[in-house]
Amino acid sequence: MAAALDEARLAASRGEVPVGAVIVDAEGRIISRAGNRVITDRDPTAHAELLAIRAAAAALGSERLANCDLYVTLEPCAMCAQAIAFARLRRLYYGAEDPKGGGVAHGARVFSQPTCHHRPEVYGGIGERAAAAILKDFFAVRR
Amino acid sequence: MAAALDEARLAASRGEVPVGAVIVDAEGRIISRAGNRVITDRDPTAHAELLAIRAAAAALGSERLANCDLYVTLEPCAMCAQAIAFARLRRLYYGAEDPKGGGVAHGARVFSQPTCHHRPEVYGGIGERAAAAILKDFFAVRR
Repeated sequence: MAAALDEARLAASRGEVPVGAVIVDAEGRIISRAGNRVITDRDPTAHAELLAIRAAAAALGSERLANCDLYVTLEPCAMCAQAIAFARLRRLYYGAEDPKGGGVAHGARVFSQPTCHHRPEVYGGIGERAAAAILKDFFAVRR
Repeated sequence: MAAALDEARLAASRGEVPVGAVIVDAEGRIISRAGNRVITDRDPTAHAELLAIRAAAAALGSERLANCDLYVTLEPCAMCAQAIAFARLRRLYYGAEDPKGGGVAHGARVFSQPTCHHRPEVYGGIGERAAAAILKDFFAVRR
């Protein structure tokens, strides 16, 4: 989660909503890491999690990331949660809760749907204080 | 929708689940078109809609596709529905219903969540018979 927090800080320095994500393999080695790039790339889908999933799939040469785990500093939205299911990620560790935009513990609750074909193990509140502080600092300057 | 159906047929010829998507601007001009490329690109996020959204955003140089409409041959999943909301697409036209994998009229029902910040106008069942026939033929060969 430390590496994900670093990616969140880098995203903030680019003027992006500060969210960072890291994917590790079964041995805990980092396969991919990314921060939000929505504004930088002019791409509405360029959330940290989606970029990390695409990079990990490219690195492993497989559209499935079984036995890999995702660390992300904020609760994933519905887009990213569904992508996590498609990628067959084993575990999801996330930092701050996102009552407005989250799709795991809030809103669409993607993994709780009876039609969800793959549910990772989910661990929320990991490094929550640091993740929330980065987000709070970012928005405090802008509001 | 005819162009989206063509993309679905092309996807089938690549061995992909046959779904095609097209984005048009306010004048009805096609900005982007794509079929599923999950297997071809080894990318779990490479659904037709997501690829079309990314291509349209790149073409317009904007992460928002206001006044643009998306045509897709199958009801979008939760990932693609949330991406449609992020892209601020004006209207969504889709073909076949997807009770197992859909995230618009089924499952996560992304646009029906109180936290959803942008809801396109949604029109289902457009070209449904043709879209369903392409899917049925595809899976008939494989089962």
